[in-house]
Amino acid sequence: MKLATLKDGTRDGRLVVVSKDLTRCCAADNIAPTLQHALDNWAEIAPKLEVLARDVEHEAVPCERFHERDSHSPLPRAYQWADGSAYINHVELVRKARGAEVPESFYHDPLMYQGGSDGFLPPRGDIPLGDTAWGCDMEGEVAVIVDDVPMGVSAEDAAGHIKLVMLVNDVSLRGVIPGELAKGFGFFQSKPASAFSPVAVTPDELGEAWKDSLVHLPLMVDYNGEPFGRAEVGVDATFNMAQLVAHAAKTRSLCAGSIIGSGTISNRDPDGGAGKPVADGGLGYSCIAEIRMIETIRDGEPTTRFMAPGDTVRVEMRDADNHSIFGAIEQKVVQA
Amino acid sequence: MKLATLKDGTRDGRLVVVSKDLTRCCAADNIAPTLQHALDNWAEIAPKLEVLARDVEHEAVPCERFHERDSHSPLPRAYQWADGSAYINHVELVRKARGAEVPESFYHDPLMYQGGSDGFLPPRGDIPLGDTAWGCDMEGEVAVIVDDVPMGVSAEDAAGHIKLVMLVNDVSLRGVIPGELAKGFGFFQSKPASAFSPVAVTPDELGEAWKDSLVHLPLMVDYNGEPFGRAEVGVDATFNMAQLVAHAAKTRSLCAGSIIGSGTISNRDPDGGAGKPVADGGLGYSCIAEIRMIETIRDGEPTTRFMAPGDTVRVEMRDADNHSIFGAIEQKVVQA
Repeated sequence: MKLATLKDGTRDGRLVVVSKDLTRCCAADNIAPTLQHALDNWAEIAPKLEVLARDVEHEAVPCERFHERDSHSPLPRAYQWADGSAYINHVELVRKARGAEVPESFYHDPLMYQGGSDGFLPPRGDIPLGDTAWGCDMEGEVAVIVDDVPMGVSAEDAAGHIKLVMLVNDVSLRGVIPGELAKGFGFFQSKPASAFSPVAVTPDELGEAWKDSLVHLPLMVDYNGEPFGRAEVGVDATFNMAQLVAHAAKTRSLCAGSIIGSGTISNRDPDGGAGKPVADGGLGYSCIAEIRMIETIRDGEPTTRFMAPGDTVRVEMRDADNHSIFGAIEQKVVQA
Repeated sequence: MKLATLKDGTRDGRLVVVSKDLTRCCAADNIAPTLQHALDNWAEIAPKLEVLARDVEHEAVPCERFHERDSHSPLPRAYQWADGSAYINHVELVRKARGAEVPESFYHDPLMYQGGSDGFLPPRGDIPLGDTAWGCDMEGEVAVIVDDVPMGVSAEDAAGHIKLVMLVNDVSLRGVIPGELAKGFGFFQSKPASAFSPVAVTPDELGEAWKDSLVHLPLMVDYNGEPFGRAEVGVDATFNMAQLVAHAAKTRSLCAGSIIGSGTISNRDPDGGAGKPVADGGLGYSCIAEIRMIETIRDGEPTTRFMAPGDTVRVEMRDADNHSIFGAIEQKVVQA
């Protein structure tokens, strides 16, 4: 099934079940007022939502027209947002651009940071930027929402705790990151509010594209209206989403509604190279930092600038029939 | 006023107003079912809770007996837990023990990490530890809860957004920290669930002890039944709580119910020295790491070990009349 949270002036919005083709939706109020409420009681509530989803599909219940622009992020705020960095190609590029090696441990011990989750941007919400020097960047990623996960869960068992899948634009302030990471406590000011796709879907909605806890489809990232990234999410992932969930739960349990992200999707070229732009026949990039690293490695310095007010980003994923699965994240940077 | 969240089998517990002497409480259900709900609508709800608090004080409403052991953390889960490190003496000791300098920037740019907030331990809840080698430590701190804070708020304005004050034991896994920080993404597995004091209080409850957005009282940390720390919270704070809130809100707004922590309370000796144990007439330490650093600087290696199953920690604060303000955090480490 497909779920969305409509903006209704409240902090947590209104849960609706959305038709597979994203044209219709039906309020789920009488089952669960909010998505967090549904996740808090998933075993009991998911089957009821599934029944409603079938009714929506068959137009057996009164539906309203679904507009992606009316959606908030599926969880407008969450109790946890933990973002991994499963695509080591991205990390290798970062390191290569500054002449550093990737530690061997990175290939078996996932990178993950604790993100701010107290307020996400809507999928069509502007990205407020205080200062262009902060180096605003998008990061196109896949994220999952889990139910309650016990401490010490195995990756194998973690797979069963993945209840919903979404896309995310993990907004990053590249100009703020170096100083912040140098302090040693990780990201904070450098990771402002992220935005998630208009719709969250259960893994079964992905059919055969959901395998080994990964989505086997390309992530479509457009920048200022041009194709920028078409990286395959199922390729070059050093860790799958279940392994990231298990990593997050190693020393503590995770509350239902916790969101775990994949990190920026990033592919090598088929020849093993660092990845060419879409315009040059490559799969492109899911963030600006990556093309800047390519430029740095190639030319000695980056030429593509980070986002400034007026720049737009679009993140979407389509199924084998070219239908949007999650709806599109479409955001514009604005001066805060 | 003083507020607590009673455990009632639900995820977010039941909000009660507690008498100043912590002996009685009255359900606030008809005003706000949970503390998060109250914070979401603070301007409207706080005055109603204040009226109830006055009635509780005058025994003008039916009250039940308040037992600290029945309390959950005031927010059993929160949308944000961001912990600063305002007491640079602590940072100086860490660095000194490993022969490193404190960067000059640390004196004007606060250290802060994004903590996990999806599930806190109750104030009397056991600390589940998977492996003694993880180096379990307590960190006695003060934390505040804010209402909605706009992006870019000044420290001056941030002070007015501080609505509640609590104590916290920020559980830290010292054995996990070095490897995790070396990866560059900050704390994650090394910071499992924290526990907050049984009661959260409005700043006015602290009277003259709340000044310049700091609590001017000692934090009492006992370890295995012995006084371990008596550091003055109002002394040696490089940053006050309002400055930490402003730091957190520099690039994004903060949702009502966000919790901001002070970092481990840590005082220098009056002679400028690194701080003596309580048994030697000093103010002691709010975490084990600190006495280990003193031992390392003095003897070349630490002798006090980290917490193991069976070890207990107690964190409390008393007013000028020796009355407990927030109730006591009392926790035992258990094998997970």
